[in-house]
Amino acid sequence: MNIHNLDKVAKSLIKEAAGRIRASFTTELIIESKSEANDLVTNIDKETEQFFIKNIKQNFPDHRIMGEEGFGDNIQDLNGYVWILDPIDGTMNFIHQKKNFAISLGIFKDGEGILGYIYDVMADDLLSGALGEGAFFNDQRIPRVEHANVEQSIISINASWVVPNKYIEHEGMIQLLNKVRGTRSYGSAAIEILYVVMGRLDAYVSMRLSPWDIAGGIVIANEVGAIVTTLANEPINLMGQNTFIVSKPGLHGDIVGNYVKLK
Amino acid sequence: MNIHNLDKVAKSLIKEAAGRIRASFTTELIIESKSEANDLVTNIDKETEQFFIKNIKQNFPDHRIMGEEGFGDNIQDLNGYVWILDPIDGTMNFIHQKKNFAISLGIFKDGEGILGYIYDVMADDLLSGALGEGAFFNDQRIPRVEHANVEQSIISINASWVVPNKYIEHEGMIQLLNKVRGTRSYGSAAIEILYVVMGRLDAYVSMRLSPWDIAGGIVIANEVGAIVTTLANEPINLMGQNTFIVSKPGLHGDIVGNYVKLK
Repeated sequence: MNIHNLDKVAKSLIKEAAGRIRASFTTELIIESKSEANDLVTNIDKETEQFFIKNIKQNFPDHRIMGEEGFGDNIQDLNGYVWILDPIDGTMNFIHQKKNFAISLGIFKDGEGILGYIYDVMADDLLSGALGEGAFFNDQRIPRVEHANVEQSIISINASWVVPNKYIEHEGMIQLLNKVRGTRSYGSAAIEILYVVMGRLDAYVSMRLSPWDIAGGIVIANEVGAIVTTLANEPINLMGQNTFIVSKPGLHGDIVGNYVKLK
Repeated sequence: MNIHNLDKVAKSLIKEAAGRIRASFTTELIIESKSEANDLVTNIDKETEQFFIKNIKQNFPDHRIMGEEGFGDNIQDLNGYVWILDPIDGTMNFIHQKKNFAISLGIFKDGEGILGYIYDVMADDLLSGALGEGAFFNDQRIPRVEHANVEQSIISINASWVVPNKYIEHEGMIQLLNKVRGTRSYGSAAIEILYVVMGRLDAYVSMRLSPWDIAGGIVIANEVGAIVTTLANEPINLMGQNTFIVSKPGLHGDIVGNYVKLK
């Protein structure tokens, strides 16, 4: 398998899928809830995933696909080539804002992330990374992220995690909130990882993310020196849900060491 | 005074100021703290305000200017024509992200908002409104906002207001947080008002905003039927700081009536 050919096909599929998503705004959106009332999915999420699967299987019959909407393979391990796909990351933004959502894709070979993509569909911005080859924003190389400290940082954290919740002691998060320069929340893990990779945010933390939310982002973040772990400071397990932090160096250790207390 | 001439000059100054701000990214940024460590100002905020003042005074010698950086007039009333200006709303975003900041400008005549502008500098998006003439996004008319309910809403609220703070009982804000579909936070009042006006957010609340953060937005919000008040459900006083809500109808009354308890 030639990684450059794989990259070319992946980029081409992302661009074509994005064109279909943009065109969909003229048709009626069918919105359903999944596991809970605010976990939304639309016909466009589903159609986009099916578009990817059909084309990946045509190009690479032995590759497997793990997709958010469940039309892919039943993945129990990361042997061989596995595409980990969120056709629309930030579905709520897609529905309410018609912007600020992304196609998120990571391609893994025997468990190792070799290609990663986050495509901000409405901005037409493609963030990509290839193992050992660096990260790129619309084909322009991205510099490595710099060291950051808590006091001068802007972190992305949803308000849900600074109030009593099932996952983390919120008192520590309040201490963090009171120490940082500012907080933001954009409603799409992929967009938020993109912001950290681009240096626009210093860290992004979340309590519950799925493999397809972060697979592409992990590959890219590695290439710019941003640190990705669970909030227990362990490697991400792509076979299940995870707590998550992507952060500039320095800040990462401070947050997981001094502010995070998981339940 | 011909309002269309005033509008033409205002738009022209905004576009020229924005060009200067974009050009400034190649020069060194001088960052200072104002009243508190995270209340930042740069040489570009100051130069942009001075650019506006010089040009407004040349075009309209009897108009007065209230600007965030204090180079304007000492405004104690809104008699005559008053330009209320934030040269860079979202200075922290300007510094850290080089995007997601806006020029915010409202022009008031004897206390009545007659023209409003929010210009997202890096997106090159101009939101504008004129009293009785509607609101426009890059010259395209914006429809009136629709009625919204809490359960299906996305509201913008900074994490600071759902934890213990000086301004509002945070328990009510936690109840609101648990009821809405989602929350966001973008770090610029002007950008957040723009999002509500465009229907991308259902409401935006904040505990402490200055006249220049909101003067332009108020004029525009009125034109699309978004409701603007303090969180005590009173009219905004442009002579001082205010709590603030801009919201779609329905949702506004529910939030201020059932979730807000000011200290």
